[in-house]
Amino acid sequence: MKILILGGDGYLGWPTAMYFSNKGNEVCVVDDFSKRRIELENGITPLNYISTLHRRVNIWNQNQNNPISLEVGSLLNSRFVYKICENYKPDTIIHYAEHPSAPYSMKGRQEAIFTQENNIIGNLNLLFAIRSFCPDVHLIKLGTMGVYGTPNIDIEEGFIDLEHNGRKDRVPYPKQPFSFYHLSKSLDSQNIEFVCKTWKLRATDLNQGVVYGIKTNETKLHDEFNTSFHYDSIFGTVINRFLTCAVTGNSLTVYGEGKQKRTFLNILDTLQCVDIASQNIPQKGEYRVFNQFTEVFSILELAEIIKQQSEKKNINVKIEKIENPRVEQAEHYYNPKNFNFKKLGLKPKKISDVILNEMIDEIVKYKNNFKSELILPKIKWKR
Amino acid sequence: MKILILGGDGYLGWPTAMYFSNKGNEVCVVDDFSKRRIELENGITPLNYISTLHRRVNIWNQNQNNPISLEVGSLLNSRFVYKICENYKPDTIIHYAEHPSAPYSMKGRQEAIFTQENNIIGNLNLLFAIRSFCPDVHLIKLGTMGVYGTPNIDIEEGFIDLEHNGRKDRVPYPKQPFSFYHLSKSLDSQNIEFVCKTWKLRATDLNQGVVYGIKTNETKLHDEFNTSFHYDSIFGTVINRFLTCAVTGNSLTVYGEGKQKRTFLNILDTLQCVDIASQNIPQKGEYRVFNQFTEVFSILELAEIIKQQSEKKNINVKIEKIENPRVEQAEHYYNPKNFNFKKLGLKPKKISDVILNEMIDEIVKYKNNFKSELILPKIKWKR
Repeated sequence: MKILILGGDGYLGWPTAMYFSNKGNEVCVVDDFSKRRIELENGITPLNYISTLHRRVNIWNQNQNNPISLEVGSLLNSRFVYKICENYKPDTIIHYAEHPSAPYSMKGRQEAIFTQENNIIGNLNLLFAIRSFCPDVHLIKLGTMGVYGTPNIDIEEGFIDLEHNGRKDRVPYPKQPFSFYHLSKSLDSQNIEFVCKTWKLRATDLNQGVVYGIKTNETKLHDEFNTSFHYDSIFGTVINRFLTCAVTGNSLTVYGEGKQKRTFLNILDTLQCVDIASQNIPQKGEYRVFNQFTEVFSILELAEIIKQQSEKKNINVKIEKIENPRVEQAEHYYNPKNFNFKKLGLKPKKISDVILNEMIDEIVKYKNNFKSELILPKIKWKR
Repeated sequence: MKILILGGDGYLGWPTAMYFSNKGNEVCVVDDFSKRRIELENGITPLNYISTLHRRVNIWNQNQNNPISLEVGSLLNSRFVYKICENYKPDTIIHYAEHPSAPYSMKGRQEAIFTQENNIIGNLNLLFAIRSFCPDVHLIKLGTMGVYGTPNIDIEEGFIDLEHNGRKDRVPYPKQPFSFYHLSKSLDSQNIEFVCKTWKLRATDLNQGVVYGIKTNETKLHDEFNTSFHYDSIFGTVINRFLTCAVTGNSLTVYGEGKQKRTFLNILDTLQCVDIASQNIPQKGEYRVFNQFTEVFSILELAEIIKQQSEKKNINVKIEKIENPRVEQAEHYYNPKNFNFKKLGLKPKKISDVILNEMIDEIVKYKNNFKSELILPKIKWKR
């Protein structure tokens, strides 16, 4: 398969590129490095050292059987996107090239607008390029479980069968995103659903939970194949953040009472899910949504799991509840479904002592890079 | 009240400005004339002659008791929006400043992106300006009934009470917009709902049906107070378009079989509804949705009503079914609710012989301006 990976420099994009290349596919990665620029603007560095994408691709191509190609450019540049789709004619496009940080999107006007513009308009350029140059491509777009919010009813996968006033219909599942970032992921999905119906494109929308993990089978192949591991309050996902705090002797800072629940998955399961999605191609005109996660935890539950596991390794850990910088429900019903991936054979790699220990051992290697000022959240949802 | 009317040059914005000014309010109109530029780009002119906004405001201010003030600028220019909100400190903002044409948004990439960027990003700039300078303002945003699509269940007003797997919740009504324009109106609404909850702003979202009509009480006050009346396939709403075709001896071109149903209201009821909304101010943090229409018709029903009425005035009319340029359900259930406005006292001015006759008489005056090449749709939803 010819696979275009948009956002190939990122936490998930780079491991996805190596994974598919290793499986014998022809992979091209695309990035505009705007996430790295946001890191610089906020004084953020990943815990581990990350080579340039050019260098990683070069080393990959010198050592592995299937070369990866690299294109630098932004989805906001329509001529670039058109050129890529026209020249490359991919079978599959895996679209990670959207800004991923809820706190960043809530920092101020510029950040809110940059997030929505990049994610919505960049995605629109891509849809028009697909229509013109590769209308049969399978577009796999990474979404977020956050678009659903925390409703008091079960969360289905993209659509819900309703009965209302004695009549029935299957309609898009109601969205209640809780940041400008999550809102951007709600409209880009609606644009994709619309063009599937109207232009007969095909797409899989992966509403993903919060990813954790630091290594994949491919990052282990070379010292410089690391993927960027963040522990800061803007890009660090909560498990990665908590484990880094534990290893570096900092409190696990739980927002509010920590009873808010979220969905989670291991980075290896991101790869497994994207692989499964890519092998099960939707019909022309079909827009499907898979909820991509393996477990549900409250934030406090996670803190306690990580505290216990750390203490088994003689790392003393304190849990500290701090004022919640976000506006979210403090306590709520939460029952999201993930039947679609289970049906297609997903074998979840759930949180375990082994997984946490591996992560702790890996984080220990980089603990000298830790900067404590990146931990506490500085961006507040309320003014 | 101090009222800011965004999009004050438009079909609805200008009559709204005069209406509120005449009622004794302090009104400021804002426009960037981008809709007039789109008209020029597409060779479109309204049927009637429309003075510049500057001239209309001048004549109004020479002849009426309450002066209207005018600010020229775009919502995409954040410094402009901030300055207006800071200097003017409105009690109410009536936000018509979004591109209103579904066909225009489907013309191509540039038009899709201009529509979504203008409507979503412009609205975001406004929300941030409100947060900084007038957080107590009542934002009244004009939306569209088109965000709901044509579901097989009753259409409620913005929210729906659900029972699902034995549990209940009140959630946003599922959106199924059928153009890039309607999609833009879906996300801007989600952004507004989010900031009401998160920043404790207050807003009324008016999901409006298709407006028709040519005169209001205030346009009658002076020859140059006309509001732009379009009959073309890009900006002309269907009743205005059909009546103009009837008067000028052209067929009424029904898209497809004409069994698709839509909601409608008279321009006088737009004014009545916006007035009612402005007098009933939501709580801080409240986001409410009112469906703003008075009647439901299929397109073929409308064509037949207009044919009959025209023939009573000895105008011979032919109805012609043409291939539907849009992708929409040919035949469907349609039961949208409008309880909110009824409860608040709306007295609908429904389609009648008198109303249609008045419109026909008015259109006759301008029939020499008619350009037949503007009637047939050139923009197709499918490529």
